[in-house]
Amino acid sequence: MNSNFHIGLLCLNINISFTQIKLFYIITFLTIFHANSQTPGGYELWLGYPEIEESTVRSEYVKITNSIFFNNKTPILQTAKNELVRGLDAMLGRASDVQDSPNLLNTMWVAKKADLNQELQSVLKGDFERIGKEGFIIKSVLVNGKSILLVTANEEVGILYGVFKLLQLMKMQKELAGLNIIEAPKLELRMLNHWDNLDRTVERGYAGFSLWNWQKLPNYIDQRYTDYARANASIGINATVLTNVNANALVLSSAYLEKAAALADVFRPYGIKVYLTARFSAPMEIGKLNTADPLDKDVIEWWKNKVKEVYKFIPDFGGFLVKANSEGQPGPQNYGRTHVDGANMLATALQPFGGIIIWRAFVYSETDATDRAKQAFIEFVPYDGNFLDNVLVQVKNGPIDFQPREPFHPMFGAMPNTPLVMEFQITQEYLGFSSHLVFLPKLYEEVLDAETYSKGKNATVAKVIDASLFNNKISGMAGVANIGTDLNWTGHPFAQANWYGYGRLAWDPYLSSETIADEWLRLTYTNDLKFVVAVKEMMTISREAVVNYMTPLGLHHLMDTGHHYGPGPWVSDLSRPEWNPTYYHKADKDGIGFDRTASGSNATSQYAPEIAKVFNDPETCPEKYLLWFHHLPWDYKLNNGGILWDEIALNYQKGVDQVEEMISIWKQVKTYISDDPYNEVRMLLEIQLKEAKWWRNACLLYFQTFSGRELPPGVELPDESLEYYKSLKFPYAPGN
Amino acid sequence: MNSNFHIGLLCLNINISFTQIKLFYIITFLTIFHANSQTPGGYELWLGYPEIEESTVRSEYVKITNSIFFNNKTPILQTAKNELVRGLDAMLGRASDVQDSPNLLNTMWVAKKADLNQELQSVLKGDFERIGKEGFIIKSVLVNGKSILLVTANEEVGILYGVFKLLQLMKMQKELAGLNIIEAPKLELRMLNHWDNLDRTVERGYAGFSLWNWQKLPNYIDQRYTDYARANASIGINATVLTNVNANALVLSSAYLEKAAALADVFRPYGIKVYLTARFSAPMEIGKLNTADPLDKDVIEWWKNKVKEVYKFIPDFGGFLVKANSEGQPGPQNYGRTHVDGANMLATALQPFGGIIIWRAFVYSETDATDRAKQAFIEFVPYDGNFLDNVLVQVKNGPIDFQPREPFHPMFGAMPNTPLVMEFQITQEYLGFSSHLVFLPKLYEEVLDAETYSKGKNATVAKVIDASLFNNKISGMAGVANIGTDLNWTGHPFAQANWYGYGRLAWDPYLSSETIADEWLRLTYTNDLKFVVAVKEMMTISREAVVNYMTPLGLHHLMDTGHHYGPGPWVSDLSRPEWNPTYYHKADKDGIGFDRTASGSNATSQYAPEIAKVFNDPETCPEKYLLWFHHLPWDYKLNNGGILWDEIALNYQKGVDQVEEMISIWKQVKTYISDDPYNEVRMLLEIQLKEAKWWRNACLLYFQTFSGRELPPGVELPDESLEYYKSLKFPYAPGN
Repeated sequence: MNSNFHIGLLCLNINISFTQIKLFYIITFLTIFHANSQTPGGYELWLGYPEIEESTVRSEYVKITNSIFFNNKTPILQTAKNELVRGLDAMLGRASDVQDSPNLLNTMWVAKKADLNQELQSVLKGDFERIGKEGFIIKSVLVNGKSILLVTANEEVGILYGVFKLLQLMKMQKELAGLNIIEAPKLELRMLNHWDNLDRTVERGYAGFSLWNWQKLPNYIDQRYTDYARANASIGINATVLTNVNANALVLSSAYLEKAAALADVFRPYGIKVYLTARFSAPMEIGKLNTADPLDKDVIEWWKNKVKEVYKFIPDFGGFLVKANSEGQPGPQNYGRTHVDGANMLATALQPFGGIIIWRAFVYSETDATDRAKQAFIEFVPYDGNFLDNVLVQVKNGPIDFQPREPFHPMFGAMPNTPLVMEFQITQEYLGFSSHLVFLPKLYEEVLDAETYSKGKNATVAKVIDASLFNNKISGMAGVANIGTDLNWTGHPFAQANWYGYGRLAWDPYLSSETIADEWLRLTYTNDLKFVVAVKEMMTISREAVVNYMTPLGLHHLMDTGHHYGPGPWVSDLSRPEWNPTYYHKADKDGIGFDRTASGSNATSQYAPEIAKVFNDPETCPEKYLLWFHHLPWDYKLNNGGILWDEIALNYQKGVDQVEEMISIWKQVKTYISDDPYNEVRMLLEIQLKEAKWWRNACLLYFQTFSGRELPPGVELPDESLEYYKSLKFPYAPGN
Repeated sequence: MNSNFHIGLLCLNINISFTQIKLFYIITFLTIFHANSQTPGGYELWLGYPEIEESTVRSEYVKITNSIFFNNKTPILQTAKNELVRGLDAMLGRASDVQDSPNLLNTMWVAKKADLNQELQSVLKGDFERIGKEGFIIKSVLVNGKSILLVTANEEVGILYGVFKLLQLMKMQKELAGLNIIEAPKLELRMLNHWDNLDRTVERGYAGFSLWNWQKLPNYIDQRYTDYARANASIGINATVLTNVNANALVLSSAYLEKAAALADVFRPYGIKVYLTARFSAPMEIGKLNTADPLDKDVIEWWKNKVKEVYKFIPDFGGFLVKANSEGQPGPQNYGRTHVDGANMLATALQPFGGIIIWRAFVYSETDATDRAKQAFIEFVPYDGNFLDNVLVQVKNGPIDFQPREPFHPMFGAMPNTPLVMEFQITQEYLGFSSHLVFLPKLYEEVLDAETYSKGKNATVAKVIDASLFNNKISGMAGVANIGTDLNWTGHPFAQANWYGYGRLAWDPYLSSETIADEWLRLTYTNDLKFVVAVKEMMTISREAVVNYMTPLGLHHLMDTGHHYGPGPWVSDLSRPEWNPTYYHKADKDGIGFDRTASGSNATSQYAPEIAKVFNDPETCPEKYLLWFHHLPWDYKLNNGGILWDEIALNYQKGVDQVEEMISIWKQVKTYISDDPYNEVRMLLEIQLKEAKWWRNACLLYFQTFSGRELPPGVELPDESLEYYKSLKFPYAPGN
C-alpha cells in the first residue's frame, strides 16, 4: 500500500484509511497555531487565520480551493497571491495548489478581466462596468461546464481587495457556493492621516510612538511597514499621509524624501499611495526664500521644483495635506492671500503629475470673537467653486473638534461645487485615550447618516462625501490614525475595531456600525455567536457611555487643558478664550449651555432651514444636542419630565453604570477567549470605570457650584472634593 | 507497506506504525512552531524553545524529565515551575508531568535545600555552602538507588536560576546524564540602568521608547513587563533602575510610586528588585523646601519620610541611584557639601529598610581646566573609606565616556575601602546606535581583564568589582540598558547579544566573550556549528571594526555633537571645552593625540606605577591606546614601521574592510536561517558599511587638513568633500 503525504509546499493527499493520522495532524496544527497566534498579543490584528475546525465548512473550502489558477504578473497581484496562499494554507492546514496558467482541474480562478477568456468577459460585462478601478467580482461561474469560483476585477488592486474579501468570508465561515459579490468602494480616497512627528512622537497618539523609524530609513525596512500595509489593504485603505498636519518642512528635504520613498515602495504593492503634509512656509525654512507668499514668482517656482523632486523620489506620490492659518500654522493669509490662493498655487504644481491638494477647513482665529463653531463655514463656504479640480477640502465631522458627540459640520451640504473630505478622528484625543473602550463607528455612522437637507430629504452627509449628491469629480474620507508602536498597534485591543471600522466606512459609508462590529469580532476573536452577540452589545453601549460620563446632553470640550486627559470644566485661564472649557459650557447660576440660536451666536443659521428650525427650538432640538445649541436654566424641564440639573447628573451616573455593564458583559464571555487577551481588556475596563467616575464626580461637583442643587437620588456621591479634582496634574500625559 | 512523507523540503521513508504517527506529529509541530516563532521578529529573544529534532538527545531528555517533583510553594518557585514547564513542553512536544510531592517514579527533582531529605542535604552540604543565596546545584544524584536529576538551591531564586540554566543546557543539547553544576553569581548586584524619562523618551535609547507606560500604570500591566522580567531572570539580572540618572523628582511623588510599585510587583516573582533615581533637589521640587542641603534638618527629615513612603509602596525597594553635581544635575556641592555628605545622608534614610545608595562617579566640572579624564579620580579617591556601608560608587569603565575603546578607569583599584560598581553602557551611544553590529562583551572583557596592579599582578578590574581583591561587603555591575519598545527589544537583532552578554558577565565577570557569543547564538538561532562558528567570528570582528572606522589608535570622542551620531572631529564651538572633539584629538600641523603623560595632563599618574610606566612611553604604550596618552607627530613610526598618518588612514580603511568581511560572513550563513531575520541583519550591515565609510572619509579628510599628506595606498578615496560631511545635520537623531 502506498500513501503520499505532501506537506509544506506540496499538496496534501491522504488516503481514507489514515483518517486517524489526519485528525491527529489537524488538531496538533491547531493547538500550536492558536498558542502562537497570541504571542505577542494582538499584533496580527484581524488578519490571523486560525485553522477551520468545522468539518463541513472545511471540506467545502478544501474542495472549492482545490486547484487555483492565479495569474500574478505584477507586484500587486503577487501581493494578492501571497495573501491568498497565506490565508488558505493556514485556514485549511495544507499547502495550496496554485498555478500560473489555467487548466481543466482548476476549481478557482483569480485573474484580471483582461486575463479572462472572451466568453467570461462578455458574460460579466455588466458587472465589470459597475466595479470601476478598485472593485471586484467574486462569483461562481461555469467554465467548460464546470463550476469555478472566480475572483476578478478590472485592475490588479481590485484583485487584491477581492482576495481579502474572500479570505474574510472564509474566516467568517460563509458559504462560498453560488457566491455572487459585485463590490466597489464608494469613495475614491480612503486615507489615514498620521499626526506623526519626525522625532517619532505622535500628536494625540496613545499607542506608543510613530511607526516610521526615520533614523533607519531608507535602508532598513521594518517588518511593521509591511504588516501595516497589509492591514490597510485588507480593509481598502489606499492612501496614507505620513506626517503631522502641524507640519515640519524638513520632510520635504531630499534626505527625508528618500526615506518617504522607501515607505512608498513598501506600500505600493498593497495599493497604497503616500502623501505628505506641506508646511506652507517651507520655501523659507528649507528653500531659503524670504517669503512664502503664494503669488510670489519665486515661491511658485520653488514649489514647482519641489514637487518635481518629490515625484522623482515617489513616482506615484499622492499629494499634500495642508493645515494653513490654523492654530499657529503659517498660510496664505500671512500674506493677505486667501485659502484659494494657497491651495490653487500648490495644486497647480501638483497637477502635471496627477497629485492632489487636501486643504483642511479646521480654522478658527484667535482674534475673531465669532463662535468658534461658525468660523470654518464663514471662511470657506464663500469660496465654493473657486478651487481647482485637484483640490479637496477636508472638514472635521463636527464644527468644534472631535468631541464625544457633535452635530454634523454645517459645511457638509453647503459647498456643492467643492469635493469635501470627511475627517474623522480614530485616535481618541477626547475620548479617554487608549484606555477607554469606545466603538467609534457608532459615532461615524451617526454623522454619515445625518440629513443635511441640502437638496431636500435624503441628502445625508454620506451622500455629500461620496459625491453622489453633487456629482463632484473626486471623493474621500480621512481618519486620524490611532496606530503606534504598541505591540497591538492601537494601545487598546478594541481600538483595532476603530481602525477596522473606519476603513470599512471609507469603503462604504452606508455600512451599519453593527455589521462592522460583527465582522471585526469574528475576524479578530471567534465566530462563536454567544461571544459575538454579547460583545457587540458591549461595543454598542460604549459610545453612549463615553458621551454620558464625559459630556452628556450636548455639553462639549470639558476636557482638561492641553493634554485633554480627564475633566477640566473649570479651566478658564488660557490665552485663547475658545481653548477654555468655560467658553463651551457657559455655566452660571442661571443655567448652562451655549446659545447658538438667533438669540445667541446664531450658528444654527449655517444649517439648512429644515435643520436649523429643529435645532433652534429647545423643545424640538434632539436632547443629545440640547446644550450644544441652548443655554437653559437648571430647572428646565426635559421631555421625560425631569429638570436639567437632575438629568445632567443622571446622565453622568448612567455613563458610569454603562461601563459597569460593559464590564459585566466582558466577564460573561471570559470562557470564549484565552486568559491574556481577556485580562488585558479587563484591566483597561477597570481604568475606564475609574476614570468614568472621576469625570462624573469632577463635573458634577463643579457644575453644582452654579446650580446650587443636590444630586438627585440614584447618583453616587463623589468620594473626593472639587479641590482634589482640580489639583490633579498630568505633565507627562501622552500625545501632547 | 511503504509510505512517503514529504515534509517541507525533507523526504522521509518510514514504516507505518505508531512511531510513524509520532514522528509525523513531531515534525509537523516543528514546522509550524518555527514559522510562528518568528512572528514578529525577535520578540522572544534567546527564550524561544523550538522542539528538539535530534532523536538521541530528545529521548535522553524525555527520559530524564519523565516525572518531575517540583515543590512550588512561593511566587518565585511558581515562576520557576512555569518556566520549566513552558520550556520542556515546547522542546519535547508534550505536556510535562509535574507533581507537588515526591514519589518513586520521579526522574527529576526541583526543590530548595529545606525541602530535600536529610540524606541529600548532608551529601550536598559542601555544595550548598558554596552557592550562597542565589546559586544553584544541578546534579545527578542517587535517591533510593535510582538516578535522579536534581535542581536545588538554598533559596528560591537559586531554583529559578537553576531552571533557566537547565533549559539553556537542553536548548544547546548538552548531555544531562552525570551533570554536576555548582554555580553562584560572583557579583551581588546585577543591574540594568534605564535612562528612561517619564515622557517615555529614552536618553541614548535607539530601540524605540521606554517600556514603562506610566500613563496606564498602575492598573494596566503590559505583557512586556513580564517578558522583560523573564529575559532578565534568565541571565541572572536581579536589579533594575527604572528611571534616567538625569532624574525627574516627580517619580518620587506618590502617584508615580504607585506606578513603580506595580512594576515591582511584576518583577518580584522573577527575583528582580526595583530601584529609582533620586534627584538631589527633590525636597525642593516636590517637597516645597527651599533647600536640598544634605546637612539641613528639614531636608534629612524629608528624605527619611520619603524613603518610608517608598517602602510602603515597594516593601523590597532596592535603593537610589544618584547622579549629582554632574552635567548640570544638582548635588551636595551646590551647598558646599561633599559627595560623602550627600550619599551618606541618603544612605542613612535607606539603611533601616536595607536599601542602598549607588552614587555615580561620572563627574567633571565646567569650571575645572583639568583633563576631564582625571577629574572623577581626583574628586572621589580622597573619600575612600568615608562612605557608609550601604553606599556603592558607580564608575564608568573608562575615564571619559563609553567610547569604542578606552583604557580602564584608574579608580578601579584605587579605592580599596569603597565598593565600586562597574558601569558599562549596553546602549550604543557612541557605537553606531542600533544600526551597527558591535558585540560589546568583547569590550567588557577587555576592561574586566585589565590588570590594575593594585595589589601586584593578577589584580584585574574583575577582581576589584567582584570584591575578591579588597573584600568589600557588597559588589555590583550596572549596564545602561539598550532596551526599548521595538518589537525585537533592542533595535538591532544582534544588540540582544549585548543585553545577554552583559547579564552573563554581571553573573560571572571571568566568562570569555567567545563563550558568551557561542551561547547566545545557540540560544537565539541554531546549534548548527557551521552557523555558530562563522557568526561568532563576525561578532568577534565587530568590536575591532567599530574602533577602527570610528576612533583607531586611541583616538576618542570624535562623534558629532549632542546626538553623537556620525563623525564630527571638527566640532570646536561648544560652550564647554571638553564637549568638543577637538579637545580630545588635539590635531595640529605637528601631530595628533592627547598628551596624558607627565609632559601633559599626567593622567597616567592615576594608574599604578607598573601601568603608568607602560602607558607613559609611546614605545611601550599599547598602540590601541597610543593617541589616548600621547600627542605624536604625523610621521611618528609605529611598531610595524609605518608612520602615524598612514597607520591612522589604514586603520580607518581596515574598519571598513572588516564590515565588508562581516557582510561576507553573513551572506555565507544565509541558508541556516529564514529570510526575514537574514534580511533584517543584512539591511543593517549595509547601513553599517555606509556609515563606516562616512566615518573614514570624514575623519581622514579633516585630519588631512593638518597632516597635509596623501592617503597611503590601499585607502579608498572619499567620494565627497570635507564640506559635504561638515554640512550634514541630524536634528531628529534619536536618543538626544
